[in-house]
Amino acid sequence: MNSENSQVAIDLLIHPKWIIPIEPTGVTLSDHALAVNDGRIVDVLPYDKALERYSSREELDLPGHVLLPGLVNLHTHAAMSLMRGYADDLPLTTWLTERIWPAEARHLTMDFVRTGTLLACAEMLRGGITTFNDMYFFPAAAVDAVRQSGMRAALGLVVLDHPTNYAADADDYLSKGLTLRDACKDHPLLSFCLAPHAPYTVTDKTFEKIATLSAQLELPIHTHLHETPNEIAESIKQYGVRPIQRLHTLGLLGPQFIAVHAVHLEAAEIDQLSHTGCHVALCPTSNLKLGSGIPAISDIHQRGINFGLGTDGAASNNRLDIFQEMRLSALLAKGVSEDAAALTAHQALQAATLNGARALGLDHQIGSLRPGKAADLCAVRIDDWMLQPCFDPASHLVYTAGRDNVTHTWVAGKLQMQENLPSNIDVQQLLAHTNIWHNRLAY
Amino acid sequence: MNSENSQVAIDLLIHPKWIIPIEPTGVTLSDHALAVNDGRIVDVLPYDKALERYSSREELDLPGHVLLPGLVNLHTHAAMSLMRGYADDLPLTTWLTERIWPAEARHLTMDFVRTGTLLACAEMLRGGITTFNDMYFFPAAAVDAVRQSGMRAALGLVVLDHPTNYAADADDYLSKGLTLRDACKDHPLLSFCLAPHAPYTVTDKTFEKIATLSAQLELPIHTHLHETPNEIAESIKQYGVRPIQRLHTLGLLGPQFIAVHAVHLEAAEIDQLSHTGCHVALCPTSNLKLGSGIPAISDIHQRGINFGLGTDGAASNNRLDIFQEMRLSALLAKGVSEDAAALTAHQALQAATLNGARALGLDHQIGSLRPGKAADLCAVRIDDWMLQPCFDPASHLVYTAGRDNVTHTWVAGKLQMQENLPSNIDVQQLLAHTNIWHNRLAY
Repeated sequence: MNSENSQVAIDLLIHPKWIIPIEPTGVTLSDHALAVNDGRIVDVLPYDKALERYSSREELDLPGHVLLPGLVNLHTHAAMSLMRGYADDLPLTTWLTERIWPAEARHLTMDFVRTGTLLACAEMLRGGITTFNDMYFFPAAAVDAVRQSGMRAALGLVVLDHPTNYAADADDYLSKGLTLRDACKDHPLLSFCLAPHAPYTVTDKTFEKIATLSAQLELPIHTHLHETPNEIAESIKQYGVRPIQRLHTLGLLGPQFIAVHAVHLEAAEIDQLSHTGCHVALCPTSNLKLGSGIPAISDIHQRGINFGLGTDGAASNNRLDIFQEMRLSALLAKGVSEDAAALTAHQALQAATLNGARALGLDHQIGSLRPGKAADLCAVRIDDWMLQPCFDPASHLVYTAGRDNVTHTWVAGKLQMQENLPSNIDVQQLLAHTNIWHNRLAY
Repeated sequence: MNSENSQVAIDLLIHPKWIIPIEPTGVTLSDHALAVNDGRIVDVLPYDKALERYSSREELDLPGHVLLPGLVNLHTHAAMSLMRGYADDLPLTTWLTERIWPAEARHLTMDFVRTGTLLACAEMLRGGITTFNDMYFFPAAAVDAVRQSGMRAALGLVVLDHPTNYAADADDYLSKGLTLRDACKDHPLLSFCLAPHAPYTVTDKTFEKIATLSAQLELPIHTHLHETPNEIAESIKQYGVRPIQRLHTLGLLGPQFIAVHAVHLEAAEIDQLSHTGCHVALCPTSNLKLGSGIPAISDIHQRGINFGLGTDGAASNNRLDIFQEMRLSALLAKGVSEDAAALTAHQALQAATLNGARALGLDHQIGSLRPGKAADLCAVRIDDWMLQPCFDPASHLVYTAGRDNVTHTWVAGKLQMQENLPSNIDVQQLLAHTNIWHNRLAY
């Protein structure tokens, strides 16, 4: 018999109807509980045993809910939430050169990025996302927003070879980025990636510099790659090779490399990404919406490439919603391969959690519900009458539920979203700031 | 000056922030109101003029909302909501022969269909759907549910050449169906289609009989067609021709014909559907989920074929959500054609409303906000903080909002959904009945 004194004191015991821990794979637990202390997962165990073993300051019953790891948005431009729906039904090149880049040239400031990133953080927390991998200008402003929101983020230190409001040339981008990284190095929820924008905006010399920095500083590299046929054709014209081959020659491919989009891949290129241990950030909504094409999700999956899911920016999606990307990835994998077993519900859930964490080099900290990992969690209520009946909670998360069914989001054990609202963001004030930018952009 | 007495008395004046009337095409109205009387749309006019002209018993201000026609679900098997997620990640043939058909053989009864259809009606009303085109067994039970819900529906008089719990042979299916139609012919919200199940379940003789009945009774025909490569291969083996050619020879193709799915089409077949004036019911989620393939939405659209959107049954989707199908159709049209301008937001909205009405021969009654048409409407609230900013309400409906943002659904002027609940369905009782069927199916 356990006496009161032999119990271990913990901060929080969560007792949902189901737990999907992601590790081990393909498992759905019933009658289990998750113990949290000091921001970390202490245990996942049968509920009756949890009551014996732990004395919790707080217990939360979630009788119609699934508890799973917080979702990882593996590619976004968070601040572009201010340009949600700003330019629809246009192809990538027109969209970028005639709408997005001119608007950015006119409006891009620290305040734009702070407001836009805060709006994105609020939306992402509402939808169960706890970590995002960002790529945008003025990352110092993004850091302000992320710290306020309480989210976890990998900030991309963006690099281009042409000037913007943010920086003058490649060295200036790099130096500003690395200074920011130094200033934030003790923040437990922040990490950084080197983020050369794309093969068509970055020179060989800059890519080589980035490869060296990545090795020296142990930073992941995150770049748009093989997004459109045009990008590939231009590379062949200018460099004589396709972008993946060019980056391989420049020494960029490897386990520290995240290829974003990877829509247009020859079989040999899928092999190359697989053999070199690269990761892929799939952004299926954005690829479809910009008319870039349909990513070969099933092939990428079958070749054992680690891939996660990204929303891309709200200007090309127009939601920062990983539930949509899970559903769409599973559907497209099946539709393209004409194999209904391609990318099952559990595999889509893993792509949206552990795989994203792995790509960012954060899988020792987040991405699954293993003791010792940070308590980055979301709870999804699936006993709503509209979602009945439920034969399999994993299937329900991917094919039936949506972000509107998320009820709680925790980051490092702190409850950062409940009752549809982020904990640390005043949404009325945020809306007022958003409206100012809306008016500036619209007129 | 208008005196009080010169005003026209009406039941309801709705004053939303925006109105998207679908006709004329591509229009979004601001500062307008919609007048309803006796279940019909009386007027769509500037709000200040509406206050002069009409005296309304009720006025409803919707200051953050878009008002549009109720959505039309052009193909579903409503009662299969009881099998939502019952068999995922399986290809069509396995899914049908090893999971769905055996379950139906064991469980199919009037009560199953009544409960399942009521659950589907509740879900559809919650998501702004006011009309659905159904194909399932025991349509008399579906009629019970539809009448209770207050929705509008076209009931498919299903026909197969093999026996089920419902009927013994083709003549029995037809006779039961036509008897039901006679019994319901005065119900203002009900219409009927002849619904031969598919080329692989219906003989030439039965198809010919159906063509004759369709001409005599002026009933649309609604059939699964060219859903999988296997269906086409089997048709070539058994009949020497592909199913579309077979049905053409049998006299079925024409303006009364709705081809459901139409995933695998040769260029000449798209021409044939176009020249004969056939309609297409696209069900993109279902096609992807069952691994059937990707419908050529952009080609179908460009050839001027009238196409609407269907969810298919919840067993292969797993939501009865036309917002999802609008978004996915627009995205797939762009992704497959690699043209971001393919199927714009306004075109997707038209597919989900007027085009569906036209396919059912109901476009004189519903599908757009023209005076004289029935007041089948839905209101979508898009001023939620998560959806900001909004540059274009049409884009927001298709790419940003979801069914969770629908706040009101009216059918023939009656408010059939508000505050997330259907007006005439007791959801607690419905859940209790659903749970009984859930337990029977699961164990």
